[in-house]
Amino acid sequence: MTGPRFDTVSFLTDYGTADEFVGVVKSVIRDIAPHVGVIDLTHEIAPFDIRAGSLALARCIGYVPSGVVLAVVDPGVGSLRRAVAIEVAGGAGVVIGPDNGLLAPAIAMAGGAERAFELTNVEYQLDAAGATFAGRDVFAPAAAHVCNGVALCELGPEIDPVLLLPGTVPLPREDGDALVTEVLWVDRFGNAQLNIGPDDLPPLWGSHLQVQVGAPTDPSGVSVRRAVRATRFSELSGGAVGLVLDSYGMLAISMDQRSAAEELGVSAGDQVTIVSLEDPPPVETRVDLGRR
Amino acid sequence: MTGPRFDTVSFLTDYGTADEFVGVVKSVIRDIAPHVGVIDLTHEIAPFDIRAGSLALARCIGYVPSGVVLAVVDPGVGSLRRAVAIEVAGGAGVVIGPDNGLLAPAIAMAGGAERAFELTNVEYQLDAAGATFAGRDVFAPAAAHVCNGVALCELGPEIDPVLLLPGTVPLPREDGDALVTEVLWVDRFGNAQLNIGPDDLPPLWGSHLQVQVGAPTDPSGVSVRRAVRATRFSELSGGAVGLVLDSYGMLAISMDQRSAAEELGVSAGDQVTIVSLEDPPPVETRVDLGRR
Amino acid sequence: MTGPRFDTVSFLTDYGTADEFVGVVKSVIRDIAPHVGVIDLTHEIAPFDIRAGSLALARCIGYVPSGVVLAVVDPGVGSLRRAVAIEVAGGAGVVIGPDNGLLAPAIAMAGGAERAFELTNVEYQLDAAGATFAGRDVFAPAAAHVCNGVALCELGPEIDPVLLLPGTVPLPREDGDALVTEVLWVDRFGNAQLNIGPDDLPPLWGSHLQVQVGAPTDPSGVSVRRAVRATRFSELSGGAVGLVLDSYGMLAISMDQRSAAEELGVSAGDQVTIVSLEDPPPVETRVDLGRR
Repeated sequence: MTGPRFDTVSFLTDYGTADEFVGVVKSVIRDIAPHVGVIDLTHEIAPFDIRAGSLALARCIGYVPSGVVLAVVDPGVGSLRRAVAIEVAGGAGVVIGPDNGLLAPAIAMAGGAERAFELTNVEYQLDAAGATFAGRDVFAPAAAHVCNGVALCELGPEIDPVLLLPGTVPLPREDGDALVTEVLWVDRFGNAQLNIGPDDLPPLWGSHLQVQVGAPTDPSGVSVRRAVRATRFSELSGGAVGLVLDSYGMLAISMDQRSAAEELGVSAGDQVTIVSLEDPPPVETRVDLGRR
Repeated sequence: MTGPRFDTVSFLTDYGTADEFVGVVKSVIRDIAPHVGVIDLTHEIAPFDIRAGSLALARCIGYVPSGVVLAVVDPGVGSLRRAVAIEVAGGAGVVIGPDNGLLAPAIAMAGGAERAFELTNVEYQLDAAGATFAGRDVFAPAAAHVCNGVALCELGPEIDPVLLLPGTVPLPREDGDALVTEVLWVDRFGNAQLNIGPDDLPPLWGSHLQVQVGAPTDPSGVSVRRAVRATRFSELSGGAVGLVLDSYGMLAISMDQRSAAEELGVSAGDQVTIVSLEDPPPVETRVDLGRR
Repeated sequence: MTGPRFDTVSFLTDYGTADEFVGVVKSVIRDIAPHVGVIDLTHEIAPFDIRAGSLALARCIGYVPSGVVLAVVDPGVGSLRRAVAIEVAGGAGVVIGPDNGLLAPAIAMAGGAERAFELTNVEYQLDAAGATFAGRDVFAPAAAHVCNGVALCELGPEIDPVLLLPGTVPLPREDGDALVTEVLWVDRFGNAQLNIGPDDLPPLWGSHLQVQVGAPTDPSGVSVRRAVRATRFSELSGGAVGLVLDSYGMLAISMDQRSAAEELGVSAGDQVTIVSLEDPPPVETRVDLGRR
């Protein structure tokens, strides 16, 4: 029994690129499935940071070509956590990685797991001296064999998708007149993406807001800044802080050509509380051109 | 009307690799034009550093295969700066990116812009929630469609190449007996490339020079060192500083297996003033082997 | 006379990715041999660190697909060191790089050099202004032409493989009851790979060991820790230090989801002395359930 043949593996890890891990995984894939192209999504997820990896993968999933998605952030390698292959999107995609929550948000964005299999069949794995490099020995061969058309059911027993470990994405909450949000991600340019989209802001709020970084109980204190809603960085002149609609449809704390995250001292996972400021009245001073 | 079909996109940005930006751009390209191979030139241009990006691109342009060059250092994303596709080299290459000076030195080295088009046709762009990721939504689709043979005139209106924003490359100047130069680039190994080639040195200068880092008015002071002209690092023994002909035909301040930039405290953009030192007379001491 | 045609170049350097060096080498390869896929093993070998590069290459060599291996850590570029192409594995692989010891451990692991050639034929090199970028001008063209089926003997004269510069891999040694080892490599996750496999430990040693980092004469002092032998990181709970069988069959000093190298202050090249601790007696306390 065979599955569809795929040409692309989209690849995300916390391996970094200083060691040869990424290159060895790609070597294994090329050895088994020479026709496959591998796209590196990123390998700079912080070591063991499942949450950051799951969010990055979720941001990518709408853009990866049909084929295999291979994601490895795997602090429990060699332990009892399962290695899995999950079919999504009517078979157009197969997501392979550890069942530790890393894959869950991306799977959800792809419409949910349709079928899931545990990667236990050692015929589709590499022999290895030690059990510490599942990316090379378990996940890469599975990805390559799936690209070659090996059916998922050959890789191991089917498991009920409802048993897959869910991911956790923080939800915003209202607290009186305030909206309490959380920073999901700070990018290279210092944009701090929040866990809210434009529709999460109360409809009556204007374009002038106040953002407060840190919980009131935070011993390191809070920082409070005015922020304006904007759609382009270039609207934020003169060092203004903006709440900008980012390219993923979320709101991000941003500045123009400067790092808002650095300016406000904000990191992924931090709480940000937003309140509305009364918009300033429109300037309509009457000007008399005639003499009095 | 169709253009030539290309197989390669050469890709340079300031995106870094910690975020998934580079991977998502490649995913978009592969989705539209699966036959294309993408070559990463570098993605570690400092954020918003148009000058450094333009110099790196100019160093690459003589080596990239025919096809599309995609370059994105784009602090004005979403503002009024134009997104452009520029044909060079009799149609053998198309350079795509923002019209902010980034592309200009490379275009000049490739023989100049032959035709230019503004990327305004939304049929060849991705819909997106926000306007902050033109690499994904505007430039990548354009690059991929051009590789598929879509004619440049389909992407938007033709514009006069003379209207493209020029780049700025600093020129050396003579100041009395001195040559005042500027550091264009410090590489990983600490070589500090200057904006002069060997022919820019006065023909009567010998091989012994003095280099002075920093302007005389620089409050942080200047550092002065002797330097010898050399063609190989290995000629620079014993910690000598050299003015070495680099692989791009420029002169670089270099040391053997050490960082000259660190040793002299020099960075890209710094002024370096060079003067000739009288070459020491050849050592011709008479040695008497016989007894007196 | 032609050689086999290859599809893959596996590529390792100390170039980093901040500069465009890696991208330019790939551009040169694609220009000459468009059918070739390049796999980046790593480019983050520390500048000029031949030993680290040779060990990384040796760890990869068992996994790279048949084809060309291109490795460049080349402090002597432009000097008298030879540029070589070495045939291994019955012609299934050709290793190209500088003859400075970088290639030796990988060549040995691939079964030894079968034939070797010096890359002197300028017809298979690029003209260049300066002599400082052999990766671009000498090694990349050689790799690409070999992939195109150019016979090795076309690239330059055959040389006796016994004349190739050997690499140096430190051997462990016994010192009384202790085993004196050396750290070969610290990976991103802080695992410190030693130059011993499980069979290098005396057969009567139990699973409880003591590791001492640093030589007794080291003025910065030594650090001593208990360590247990383990096969999975997850066995090392509560901050325990383990001697774990790694994925290359070597023993590594590791911790669970923490950096052992940071915890113990150990770096590549450090000496680590291991002694056996008597295994604690099994806990068999008699428990009287009845009343006295």
